[in-house]
Amino acid sequence: MKIPVVRNILEVNDRIANEHRELFQKNNLLVLNLMSSPGAGKTSLLENTIGHLKEKMRIGVIEGDIQTSVDAERILGAGAAAVQINTDGACHLDANMIKAALPGINMEETDLLFIENVGNLVCPAEFDLGEDYKVMILSVTEGDDKPEKYPLMFHEASVLLVNKIDLLPYVSCDMSRIREAVLKINPHIKIFEISCQTKEGLDNWFQWISGCVKK
Amino acid sequence: MKIPVVRNILEVNDRIANEHRELFQKNNLLVLNLMSSPGAGKTSLLENTIGHLKEKMRIGVIEGDIQTSVDAERILGAGAAAVQINTDGACHLDANMIKAALPGINMEETDLLFIENVGNLVCPAEFDLGEDYKVMILSVTEGDDKPEKYPLMFHEASVLLVNKIDLLPYVSCDMSRIREAVLKINPHIKIFEISCQTKEGLDNWFQWISGCVKK
Repeated sequence: MKIPVVRNILEVNDRIANEHRELFQKNNLLVLNLMSSPGAGKTSLLENTIGHLKEKMRIGVIEGDIQTSVDAERILGAGAAAVQINTDGACHLDANMIKAALPGINMEETDLLFIENVGNLVCPAEFDLGEDYKVMILSVTEGDDKPEKYPLMFHEASVLLVNKIDLLPYVSCDMSRIREAVLKINPHIKIFEISCQTKEGLDNWFQWISGCVKK
Repeated sequence: MKIPVVRNILEVNDRIANEHRELFQKNNLLVLNLMSSPGAGKTSLLENTIGHLKEKMRIGVIEGDIQTSVDAERILGAGAAAVQINTDGACHLDANMIKAALPGINMEETDLLFIENVGNLVCPAEFDLGEDYKVMILSVTEGDDKPEKYPLMFHEASVLLVNKIDLLPYVSCDMSRIREAVLKINPHIKIFEISCQTKEGLDNWFQWISGCVKK
């Protein structure tokens, strides 16, 4: 009985996600769905990105979190508009939750909308939210075996940011093993090596965003 | 419709978990359900623990993984018996998966059974597997805001291992904030600060296990 129920949930999700996608396109809004394990650096990346790009484009963030609003407060502190979704225990965002958050976003006056997903390397990858691109972060402290062990998210993402490269001297993590495994799963993915702490590599990410915005 | 289905799944799970618990108790088997985010150090902890304790007790491991057997190979390399469960996409182990793995464990000739859950800080905490204790690992690289953001697992765990303390000089993580937040959620939890890299603090963990084994 379990599988039909899950399929039904995903079908309903995809229908709602497609409605979002039409709405985003009508408003020339670039939407990025940001996913990672807990603590890989999603909110730090957003703080850096908002700080660097807020003079050039209008940025909004939908913050997904199980029950707090600590990340949304960091986003507001960085200078972007933020809408909080509390999933009340659920381990991922779905299109229906985004639907509830969208009235809080002024789409006409926004160029770039980030959706920060719940910290989880598994389930968020299964749910289309209507985004243009899925962007994922892997921290080098998580280890170089993660692409093989959690392949779906690496398969679904258009961009992989490998974060915390400033910690490479202190951890056992082989960047070439990551690149090789990821490109085997997803040959078209863009990979940026970054550190939100030292800012190394972030310019490539900012340039990629600037090349994608639509208005 | 969604909530009744989930409740039903959890009820069935708990019934099977209770059958496991009776079986484990009949065999005087200590069972620990090990949970964390991806890359926090579950397999490294098991390698260290097996290396240190395998002369004193007979150790088995059930390895939960989405689709590979790389961790089970590391466990075999460390010198313990391992049974692999592949969840085929599912983000947590449930009691029924454990049921399928148990014929691979010789319970009469095992003193300590670890169940290494799928790397996920959310869903594994909801599923009773029949274990004596839930043990969780948090890596300092994940940040000190994780107890507030993912409280259920911290609430359910009997032991918290805060791992990678050798990286504390290089990351922004306040150990006192972790302790304070965790003890507010779960005043009875035991907290051990460890490093699987330098072995610091592991003796306290080994002593805790030695005090819990039943035969």
